[in-house]
Amino acid sequence: MTVNHQQYLQAAIDEAQKGLDHGGIPIGSVLVHDGNIIGRGHNQRVQKGSTVLHGEMDALENAGRQSAAVYRASTLYTTLSPCPMCSGTIILYGIQHVVIGENQNFQGEEDWLQSRGVTVTVLNDTTCINMMAQFIREKPALWNEDIGV
Amino acid sequence: MTVNHQQYLQAAIDEAQKGLDHGGIPIGSVLVHDGNIIGRGHNQRVQKGSTVLHGEMDALENAGRQSAAVYRASTLYTTLSPCPMCSGTIILYGIQHVVIGENQNFQGEEDWLQSRGVTVTVLNDTTCINMMAQFIREKPALWNEDIGV
Repeated sequence: MTVNHQQYLQAAIDEAQKGLDHGGIPIGSVLVHDGNIIGRGHNQRVQKGSTVLHGEMDALENAGRQSAAVYRASTLYTTLSPCPMCSGTIILYGIQHVVIGENQNFQGEEDWLQSRGVTVTVLNDTTCINMMAQFIREKPALWNEDIGV
Repeated sequence: MTVNHQQYLQAAIDEAQKGLDHGGIPIGSVLVHDGNIIGRGHNQRVQKGSTVLHGEMDALENAGRQSAAVYRASTLYTTLSPCPMCSGTIILYGIQHVVIGENQNFQGEEDWLQSRGVTVTVLNDTTCINMMAQFIREKPALWNEDIGV
């Protein structure tokens, strides 16, 4: 089966943009099962004062409680390479495939994911790269806070 | 400095018990900085329908946005060995010390934490072991859902 990654990545980018529009950190994510988006979300550090709702976490939280079978057959799309927290969550739930918008501005735990059998696809999408680069340039302190620096 | 782990572990156990009293999964956690508990929480899968608020995550969320310096000087106490998600969060925020109530009923990513320089102290406290063992016996499906099985 050929999957059109771009369609789902665009949904993640739309989430990132929504976050940016509300003064937040522009990282978005969607969880896709059987071709359907079952959860979408974006970083909520600013908007909710959340330290755990990175984009990927917000998408998973919004997907609600799912069975292990659903997670295992799902693909997680994220605009930015997943940090240790988000990578650990992918491993916890046995998500088998992660599609990453870009890893130029930040590289997370891709090696760890792959060592645990997760398929990692990096698109290095120009929209993702530019959006994140601009944000880091404009709000370096907020970005550092988000990655524990 | 001698730290009395039992005092903080007891606060984590109290959180776990609070969760149990409300029909939830009995895992609790506290974040301790400079001898003070700055965040406390417990697993919120049942109570909030949350897939990301494990006990450790709830404690960190309730601690609110902290500087990297605070995280680095903090110790996280948890009643149960931290799963990949919670371990990844510990690494993300550079928490240097994790004190674990027990790892008999579940062993998380202790090796990974140690490989990243985190000090891992396992107490194997009888109260923690018994509380979790009883819960797993009584509600195996809920427990499996919590660890992605």
